[in-house]
Amino acid sequence: MQNNLIIHDVGLRDGLQSIDRVIETTKKIEWLDQLIIAGVRVIQVGSFVNPKVLPQMADTDEIFSIINQRKDLPKDLVLTALILNEKGMERAIQAKVGKILMGVSASETHSYKNTKMTTAEATNRIITIAKECVAAGREVQVSIQSAFGCGFEGRIPLERVLKIAEKYLNNGLRNISLADTAGHANPKRVEELFTKLKKMDDNSELACHFHNTYGMGLINIQSAINCGVKYVETSFAGLGGCPFTKVAAGNVATEDFVHYLRREDYDTNINLDLMIDLAKDVEQYLGYKLPGYVYKTGKINWN
Amino acid sequence: MQNNLIIHDVGLRDGLQSIDRVIETTKKIEWLDQLIIAGVRVIQVGSFVNPKVLPQMADTDEIFSIINQRKDLPKDLVLTALILNEKGMERAIQAKVGKILMGVSASETHSYKNTKMTTAEATNRIITIAKECVAAGREVQVSIQSAFGCGFEGRIPLERVLKIAEKYLNNGLRNISLADTAGHANPKRVEELFTKLKKMDDNSELACHFHNTYGMGLINIQSAINCGVKYVETSFAGLGGCPFTKVAAGNVATEDFVHYLRREDYDTNINLDLMIDLAKDVEQYLGYKLPGYVYKTGKINWN
Repeated sequence: MQNNLIIHDVGLRDGLQSIDRVIETTKKIEWLDQLIIAGVRVIQVGSFVNPKVLPQMADTDEIFSIINQRKDLPKDLVLTALILNEKGMERAIQAKVGKILMGVSASETHSYKNTKMTTAEATNRIITIAKECVAAGREVQVSIQSAFGCGFEGRIPLERVLKIAEKYLNNGLRNISLADTAGHANPKRVEELFTKLKKMDDNSELACHFHNTYGMGLINIQSAINCGVKYVETSFAGLGGCPFTKVAAGNVATEDFVHYLRREDYDTNINLDLMIDLAKDVEQYLGYKLPGYVYKTGKINWN
Repeated sequence: MQNNLIIHDVGLRDGLQSIDRVIETTKKIEWLDQLIIAGVRVIQVGSFVNPKVLPQMADTDEIFSIINQRKDLPKDLVLTALILNEKGMERAIQAKVGKILMGVSASETHSYKNTKMTTAEATNRIITIAKECVAAGREVQVSIQSAFGCGFEGRIPLERVLKIAEKYLNNGLRNISLADTAGHANPKRVEELFTKLKKMDDNSELACHFHNTYGMGLINIQSAINCGVKYVETSFAGLGGCPFTKVAAGNVATEDFVHYLRREDYDTNINLDLMIDLAKDVEQYLGYKLPGYVYKTGKINWN
């Protein structure tokens, strides 16, 4: 297995935005600190979106403001946040976000529902925003959502995804994430898409984001890693999806992924015990069982 | 993907033996019928063990007696059952079981706890029993339990597993299953072990049996398939493990595996909709959520 794999924990954003409850800022910072202490080095803190639409993320500016005053943060720590538009961009630059994330959907239906724009229009807009972020000295990751399929449209043609990626690359945006918003990905498709993407620019830094809707999260991640994907997006405790509907579809749990990698003789420099403690803490706080496996069963004891 | 893959559903045995409740015989037969109608062609019906120890399996003779009177069963249907000893063997032969399953543990501690015998003693005994079953005209599958690790002993040396396999092969027993009793397997280890096993006898018919304790069930199955494993043991609805303890560790759900294979463009000839209906029926009957994914979320709609 390649030795430059980086785990990007998205639980504080993708996880917490999807539960029907606003978590207090002090608690979020406590969990963020636990992630940092456990050794996670790329952490998605929140998103700069309309607080009326997504009250769960309303304190993202405040969290950055508090964290940025800290003098004791690890030098290699990268805190990330998602933006959707120009307003979010301004807030993210103001908040001194380490890496700003943004994207478009490869599904026309999904794109229109989210932005009232076609995929082509949304891509041009996001590229403009991304370049402004770069000009402001920020790192940027651009994503392609619904890259592997869409709840509305079903299969998404490969070419449509690659066309967006090409535009990103032509504009110097090399950190590209393929996101499986609906959880439709399967290993063959993952391999096909990332292989073609890697061939377009060998210097790109690719990321993958899978939802575990159908139990294929881990096998899809492994397929992406096989293609040279560098960033793997997972969420502590497997947070995400909605526990109160029939579709519970968080990302693969970070601690499960760390545990898996250790079984495969790959050391992530992340403290698995602390990640398990964190997941237990989250379960206790939320009051219901979360999708993660290892925090419930305990890790395998090596000998 | 190889096109001779066979799903062996073990839910009626491995699944139902691990829940703390005896399911009525008529209900078991109803589920068995649903499996058959859905197109599953190798089905584990139960085990011939001491009914005082495992009352959940006390009706295995009765189920075979009822089913064997049927004239309308598919010709290619193979009903299997597990035995532990000579007494079980007699009952299984009497019951006209299609394929009789038996095994030993590669973990000395596990072997001794189960049989009061060393692994070597247990292997000799199982080989004697297996040969008697063959002499009685029955198909046989011999297994090696705890092949990938043991809750008591941790890592199990590869050589110990291969030594048992060698004895099986030397005695003409070529249908061999490696069982991950504790759920400790990981893809690298699976590949290592099955590759070596396949090299020992290219005519062997290999089977894999993984528990999803740590979320690695599917990726382990794929690793085994890559090595030419023919039989994959899964359980409908992901039945297995104990829902009332912290360790819930059934096999991968059959319907999830069928769904995965279809995404990978592999047709199992199993009707996914009927498998999903079955899993829903099991959830409703038992009154709690089961580990399967697809029966909760619905399958991906192809287009």
